[in-house]
Amino acid sequence: MFFASDNTSPVHPKVMEALSKANSGYMPSYGNDPIMDSVRTKLRDIFDAPEAAIYLVATGSAANALSLSILNASYQTVFCHRNAHIEEDECGAPEFYMNGGKLALVDGEHAKMTPDTLRSVIAATGCGGVHGMQRGAVSITNVTEHGTVYTPAEIAALTAVARDYDLPCHMDGARFANAIAATGATPAEMTWKAGIDVLSFGGTKNGLMGCEAVIIFDPKRAWEFELRRKRGGHLFSKHRYLSAQMDAFVTDGLWIDLATHANAMGAELAQGLAQIDGITLAHPIDANMVFASMPNSLHRHMIASGARYNPWPDTADFNAKGDAIGRLVTSWSTTPADVQQFLSALQNR
Amino acid sequence: MFFASDNTSPVHPKVMEALSKANSGYMPSYGNDPIMDSVRTKLRDIFDAPEAAIYLVATGSAANALSLSILNASYQTVFCHRNAHIEEDECGAPEFYMNGGKLALVDGEHAKMTPDTLRSVIAATGCGGVHGMQRGAVSITNVTEHGTVYTPAEIAALTAVARDYDLPCHMDGARFANAIAATGATPAEMTWKAGIDVLSFGGTKNGLMGCEAVIIFDPKRAWEFELRRKRGGHLFSKHRYLSAQMDAFVTDGLWIDLATHANAMGAELAQGLAQIDGITLAHPIDANMVFASMPNSLHRHMIASGARYNPWPDTADFNAKGDAIGRLVTSWSTTPADVQQFLSALQNR
Amino acid sequence: MFFASDNTSPVHPKVMEALSKANSGYMPSYGNDPIMDSVRTKLRDIFDAPEAAIYLVATGSAANALSLSILNASYQTVFCHRNAHIEEDECGAPEFYMNGGKLALVDGEHAKMTPDTLRSVIAATGCGGVHGMQRGAVSITNVTEHGTVYTPAEIAALTAVARDYDLPCHMDGARFANAIAATGATPAEMTWKAGIDVLSFGGTKNGLMGCEAVIIFDPKRAWEFELRRKRGGHLFSKHRYLSAQMDAFVTDGLWIDLATHANAMGAELAQGLAQIDGITLAHPIDANMVFASMPNSLHRHMIASGARYNPWPDTADFNAKGDAIGRLVTSWSTTPADVQQFLSALQNR
Amino acid sequence: MFFASDNTSPVHPKVMEALSKANSGYMPSYGNDPIMDSVRTKLRDIFDAPEAAIYLVATGSAANALSLSILNASYQTVFCHRNAHIEEDECGAPEFYMNGGKLALVDGEHAKMTPDTLRSVIAATGCGGVHGMQRGAVSITNVTEHGTVYTPAEIAALTAVARDYDLPCHMDGARFANAIAATGATPAEMTWKAGIDVLSFGGTKNGLMGCEAVIIFDPKRAWEFELRRKRGGHLFSKHRYLSAQMDAFVTDGLWIDLATHANAMGAELAQGLAQIDGITLAHPIDANMVFASMPNSLHRHMIASGARYNPWPDTADFNAKGDAIGRLVTSWSTTPADVQQFLSALQNR
Repeated sequence: MFFASDNTSPVHPKVMEALSKANSGYMPSYGNDPIMDSVRTKLRDIFDAPEAAIYLVATGSAANALSLSILNASYQTVFCHRNAHIEEDECGAPEFYMNGGKLALVDGEHAKMTPDTLRSVIAATGCGGVHGMQRGAVSITNVTEHGTVYTPAEIAALTAVARDYDLPCHMDGARFANAIAATGATPAEMTWKAGIDVLSFGGTKNGLMGCEAVIIFDPKRAWEFELRRKRGGHLFSKHRYLSAQMDAFVTDGLWIDLATHANAMGAELAQGLAQIDGITLAHPIDANMVFASMPNSLHRHMIASGARYNPWPDTADFNAKGDAIGRLVTSWSTTPADVQQFLSALQNR
Repeated sequence: MFFASDNTSPVHPKVMEALSKANSGYMPSYGNDPIMDSVRTKLRDIFDAPEAAIYLVATGSAANALSLSILNASYQTVFCHRNAHIEEDECGAPEFYMNGGKLALVDGEHAKMTPDTLRSVIAATGCGGVHGMQRGAVSITNVTEHGTVYTPAEIAALTAVARDYDLPCHMDGARFANAIAATGATPAEMTWKAGIDVLSFGGTKNGLMGCEAVIIFDPKRAWEFELRRKRGGHLFSKHRYLSAQMDAFVTDGLWIDLATHANAMGAELAQGLAQIDGITLAHPIDANMVFASMPNSLHRHMIASGARYNPWPDTADFNAKGDAIGRLVTSWSTTPADVQQFLSALQNR
Repeated sequence: MFFASDNTSPVHPKVMEALSKANSGYMPSYGNDPIMDSVRTKLRDIFDAPEAAIYLVATGSAANALSLSILNASYQTVFCHRNAHIEEDECGAPEFYMNGGKLALVDGEHAKMTPDTLRSVIAATGCGGVHGMQRGAVSITNVTEHGTVYTPAEIAALTAVARDYDLPCHMDGARFANAIAATGATPAEMTWKAGIDVLSFGGTKNGLMGCEAVIIFDPKRAWEFELRRKRGGHLFSKHRYLSAQMDAFVTDGLWIDLATHANAMGAELAQGLAQIDGITLAHPIDANMVFASMPNSLHRHMIASGARYNPWPDTADFNAKGDAIGRLVTSWSTTPADVQQFLSALQNR
Repeated sequence: MFFASDNTSPVHPKVMEALSKANSGYMPSYGNDPIMDSVRTKLRDIFDAPEAAIYLVATGSAANALSLSILNASYQTVFCHRNAHIEEDECGAPEFYMNGGKLALVDGEHAKMTPDTLRSVIAATGCGGVHGMQRGAVSITNVTEHGTVYTPAEIAALTAVARDYDLPCHMDGARFANAIAATGATPAEMTWKAGIDVLSFGGTKNGLMGCEAVIIFDPKRAWEFELRRKRGGHLFSKHRYLSAQMDAFVTDGLWIDLATHANAMGAELAQGLAQIDGITLAHPIDANMVFASMPNSLHRHMIASGARYNPWPDTADFNAKGDAIGRLVTSWSTTPADVQQFLSALQNR
């Protein structure tokens, strides 16, 4: 009953196999390995973006912070939702990599910005001439931190606002595969066709060991990205082991299959929870994250029964009185039996 | 009818005189001038703080950003009001000097934090362990950006919240003299006796040419401040001319006299405005700033009549329809005649 | 004939096995996995340092830059050899993580500082009061970039100089295992007993996939390290896969065995080269790196024959006339046959 | 006998007069004062550069660090002489403003780079691809820190090397006026006609209170400069008092007259010293700085007699045995009598 995060799940066997296969003989380091050529080819194909520059790093925070550091100058403000991962869960990595850039926080239900909420924050920024921060990149998290998903049309509506102000757009796609699986959109429709300039394409939460791609659709700042990656300590010497992970991931649709499964488990879990008295779902279930509000006594029962998941937000406390929200995340490795075991334990209180 | 800002006013004659007097012969540079000895002695006396470390810089942004850089690590968050100058009007100087520290924004009417609003933001910060920014310094602006003033008791109530979390406290006192004049508190009561660790003690807006003191009540980080000041390009070689300004300012209570006058002019202006139909005051008038809401047609009439002041916030626009707020700031050099001229012009529409 | 770098070699089978073994079921993320407990226990035992704080990151640049960022303030200068990796090969990662700290470069034959060359640079730094950078950490690379090794006595002599100025000491031990294998010293003798405060303990070049430990002997800045690691994007979510690598490495002396082998291959290669007319060794052969000066025609012959290695320094060029130095690095996976093949090819020109 | 630095001298009476004249009534802040219009017009005329963007700051370190921050990315290396002020006397301000950019140090007698020494350092930088810092701006100090002066032809020879590598060029002209006075070159010949892109045009050491202009010959990065100036805390609110200083300085050739006088005093002092047994001049006397090597007993005699000047470099010590170099700086306010008094005191030992 491990629902703490998709990053507590193991690595998919096909990925382990690819790592073993890559572990043979000598190979050029620092990204010059031939497996990386395959990764680039496959991802360009998947994204229908033959010119895209593609780089691998090992963590989502690195992918996001480095991406923003090439899109947003230190004197510019990134626009993101109040509950974005870059705001809440990266200990200021974007600000560090941007040398003191800021984030302006946009409201919106279920962790989704709307064109109106985004526009109003952009409009209120950068009006003070040299005295205030200037308008910078828009960063959209998809899947959001509340488990909801933007459709390509919703993305396009947000980037249209950005375009009105001539601002670049970043997507934090730590769970990009889940968003694709949820919507059925093509990767191109969800990104460059919808106005995204740079994508953090997540793998770690979806079956990889520690590997994310940064996809830069307009490659003119690619060299700067390479330098900033190196300077941030994020260029792997034995790069083939990043390449091998990503290569397996994007071969034969593995990335989509794993996300599709995770989403299905999320739906099943949500459906079961919704039928239990005293439990309500705090957000729509679009992908693999379920936010269930229930009495803390019930949370404590579940934890005691061996379930693993966390209160949400961080400040919530299962030891308090009353109700709280627990965040339950399914993954590629969640089984229907896991879900049933959880639901049964809930009923056996 | 110049009410755009107290920084559009000239330098007080006594300060000019002090500069002339200092302009004789050779003097050691970089703060080793004998006039600085006098400044230190007088300010320590005024603040009843014989151990305080005292430094001069030329701008308020430098005073604030450098102060925060010794109180707040790069991985910590500063707590300040949503309308604080450090948030709105310094183009990210604090974030730059803190190498990517963040500001968490606290609500409160009339630009004043309350113990409750402050506590709720502090409580919600730093709960995510290593994943989130850590709690850092509390920064209190007094006089606030909306012209209101915290009393020593109000300051103490805020710093008590900070002390509950073991956080240091900074005061942005760009208009500190006006706050003292408004409350009758002693400088010690308003600062270290109320829990303030470092004060940006403003002079520029109150008759100086370009001079602010940073007063560090606990001098253990003084040397670090000196290095950061130098490294920020804020250590003056011909330092005597900063010293001379500040020395004149703190001699015979000039700083208080000038602020008392500015506040009186603010009160007079506010009183006149309040009696005019269609004009309302957006905030209490505690010091030298008046926020007057009136029809934009009236604003345009006043600008056309030669008045100088700005819409507030930056995004407001006197050319729009309806009403807008104009910010009117009085200073040491505002005369009763200036105020009367303004009020008359309003009535002669 | 792959001698380009020890980072072109594969991962040792025992490490792959450990990764497979770790890949079972769910495990807490972000360093809370039980394998990390084992790593801590084993490394504390190996270093006879029961209080040491121990953290894992994936790259050597991250280990070095993060280590320096907790030892050296932004206004301080790190002292290192002119040919240190942190100076030459990290694209300014230390300066980035230190927010603009500097490196002062120390001379010394074969990439080794001496107490005299170190003292002279320290003595010449920080004499200008607030106007110059202050003296900061001493960073010692062992094995050096020229393949030479400091003995514990030599380390102690350098740290004694640092201690005279009250400066902390860092060791870049990307090839620490090779230095231990070369000297027969214990890890404690080479580090904290010799005055080292923080060690970058390398694994990647010696059979791991991408894993380095940072060992902080005085743990008072451990929490700051954790925050800076997160903020730098270097905290792995699926941390167990770092733990598993390091755990295998430090089990049953694997790390030493691999380095001992690599060093033996280096010695064998050097011995063969030394007997060939027209080839001279530029530096003593203490570990697994051989710098061989030979006619460029011969380098071109070797490259054409399939050998892989690089000119040294970067600016050298095998296509130029005359002689150049080639850097040849052996690793855990180099075989005696590899060495013989290389030597034979040299003789068959 | 004050020869410690030209920054220990007072402000020229015409500048004080201009400050008094500016001190009348209200004036727009933050550089929108009409006096700044005059400054721009006059400086563009003096430099024959009608398009140049011109900004004022209060210190030379700010002028240099901000200039470099728009010319040199964080992952690039500035090339400057080993004895440049930006390397030795700004406590890392350039590295701070560049967010961890580096300086590569170029040799050359009398603190002057030569095309050869510059080229060799540039050629050795940036060859390691992504692993090393990239080549960045060339910064030339004129007058140098050893009192020597580059001619326009020498400048052009250095910038030609930079142009070979497509690198921008900065001049630290803290004593630019002295260099102009020494060579008779026009300001245009010494700067943009010789390949300089951005000039720090010093005033403080030559009769101003605290004012330097940054002249950006190609204005495309002017807005970025404005934002970085604000963000660095270097935008003055009561800007008219910077404008007034600079306006007086560049009116009727005052800046040249003062420098011409300072240089003449330097020459007179040098001539007198050269005739005294046991005194040698360490560097050619091109401008207003004299480096005199003499027995420390004689230095101590002079200090005891009331002379004020410093040992050079910082590490030298008049209390040691043997000889040391004293740095003597003349200024606009040095009189022939001052020089004679000094020379007499030397002879009356």
